[in-house]
Amino acid sequence: MRIRLDVAYDGTGFHGWAAQPGLRTVEGALGNALATVLRVEAVELTCAGRTDAGVHARGQVVHCDLPDPVVESGLDRLGRRLDGVLDADVRVRRVARAPEGFDARFSAVWRRYAYRIADRPETVDPLRRASVLAWGRPLDAALMNQAAQALVGEHDFAAFCKRREGASTVRELLELVWSREADGLLVAHVRADAFCHSMVRSLVGCALAVGEGRRPPEWAGDVLGAGVRDSAVPVAPAHGLTLEEVGYPPEAELAARVEVTRARRG
Amino acid sequence: MRIRLDVAYDGTGFHGWAAQPGLRTVEGALGNALATVLRVEAVELTCAGRTDAGVHARGQVVHCDLPDPVVESGLDRLGRRLDGVLDADVRVRRVARAPEGFDARFSAVWRRYAYRIADRPETVDPLRRASVLAWGRPLDAALMNQAAQALVGEHDFAAFCKRREGASTVRELLELVWSREADGLLVAHVRADAFCHSMVRSLVGCALAVGEGRRPPEWAGDVLGAGVRDSAVPVAPAHGLTLEEVGYPPEAELAARVEVTRARRG
Repeated sequence: MRIRLDVAYDGTGFHGWAAQPGLRTVEGALGNALATVLRVEAVELTCAGRTDAGVHARGQVVHCDLPDPVVESGLDRLGRRLDGVLDADVRVRRVARAPEGFDARFSAVWRRYAYRIADRPETVDPLRRASVLAWGRPLDAALMNQAAQALVGEHDFAAFCKRREGASTVRELLELVWSREADGLLVAHVRADAFCHSMVRSLVGCALAVGEGRRPPEWAGDVLGAGVRDSAVPVAPAHGLTLEEVGYPPEAELAARVEVTRARRG
Repeated sequence: MRIRLDVAYDGTGFHGWAAQPGLRTVEGALGNALATVLRVEAVELTCAGRTDAGVHARGQVVHCDLPDPVVESGLDRLGRRLDGVLDADVRVRRVARAPEGFDARFSAVWRRYAYRIADRPETVDPLRRASVLAWGRPLDAALMNQAAQALVGEHDFAAFCKRREGASTVRELLELVWSREADGLLVAHVRADAFCHSMVRSLVGCALAVGEGRRPPEWAGDVLGAGVRDSAVPVAPAHGLTLEEVGYPPEAELAARVEVTRARRG
């Protein structure tokens, strides 16, 4: 039986999502907790967004397949039992049976990230320093939004991605909006069908150059059009980035979505 | 010349505001940073709210008196220079000349605190675990607000205060409202002319008992009326509490306010 876990973590103390021998990762910690609590051997986990080292999540979605008797013996208390075993920097917010056809990765239709910046001394909050980038110079959100216009839509984002042999870098960027929040933070809301490696942080790095006035807003479109990784685009620090939410289609369309995604991404 | 500093800190690593020999405190850290940056001996600091160990601040207000030449040599860069010397868990958000008659403590007309609670697993955010109390059972905000009604106004809050010989425990509680925020957290907004020691955390402890249904809403008024510290009222943990803002009167009334407060509090 497949179960869905909704997970939140402070990425500061993790070497990212993906399990790596000898390193503390979210996948490793959660897999160990499941094995401990359920008294099973290894548990294979699939997540919606494989976050890099230092990146946080409030809305990570994970699935795993467990023997039916294990699940039936108390799914309702599983989240609390996992939290009891896990360190406080990762929490299980919800555990549920996955609907028919659900796949945390392949049935997702979009991922939404936020990137948070404190660009004025009066907005720097020590309580949020683990997940907000402190930036020494004021940024112009209007210019950053102007730059974003050329990026939204379906494009080959090779210029903003770490190259991986054979993998497509075509993605549909559904939303890239900078807004000044009530607490004075400048926040990018970034949503796409999927992201390639380091894509959000490169989009943010590009926006920082525009927001500071070091580059004109048109630069973003020029970089995109060039189609190759541009060393002039910095990759923004990991700790400002948080995976906020993953979107799934209605239950009836879950299985069909898996086929579409698998065909596209291999 | 008197200067005003607006300061924010993560209280986790501090033994509260007030300087204590051998212990890391906010007053000690900030005083040392000022002495280092300004190349002066000790600097005496006065703050609006002497927060306890583990309590945070986003809107702490501090004043100190510095020799005129020191101030004139660059007040605009002082905040940044202090931040360069301070650890990242305390930040100076603003530095300005204090207006005539200003006293961070005695001219304040109110202090506003927030107490944050995550009472459902789906609202627990590891990124905020340093400043949000995780509570294992769901709380009823309506009951907690009902209880608050008997507390708002001018009363002797002896029942909610740590006793100190000779000090008055009469305070005017201007606001005590529990609200469910967009992120699902339950937050108390608490505002008073001033607070006596452990008062906010005792008000919260009382509200927790009511919100869980262990006590009826009327209990809060009963405790207040009894007028003595009630051991049945727990003091809520420090880390959920943050000093958010301090209110001051218009400039023309600053000095007069100091006289009024001094007369009342000694």
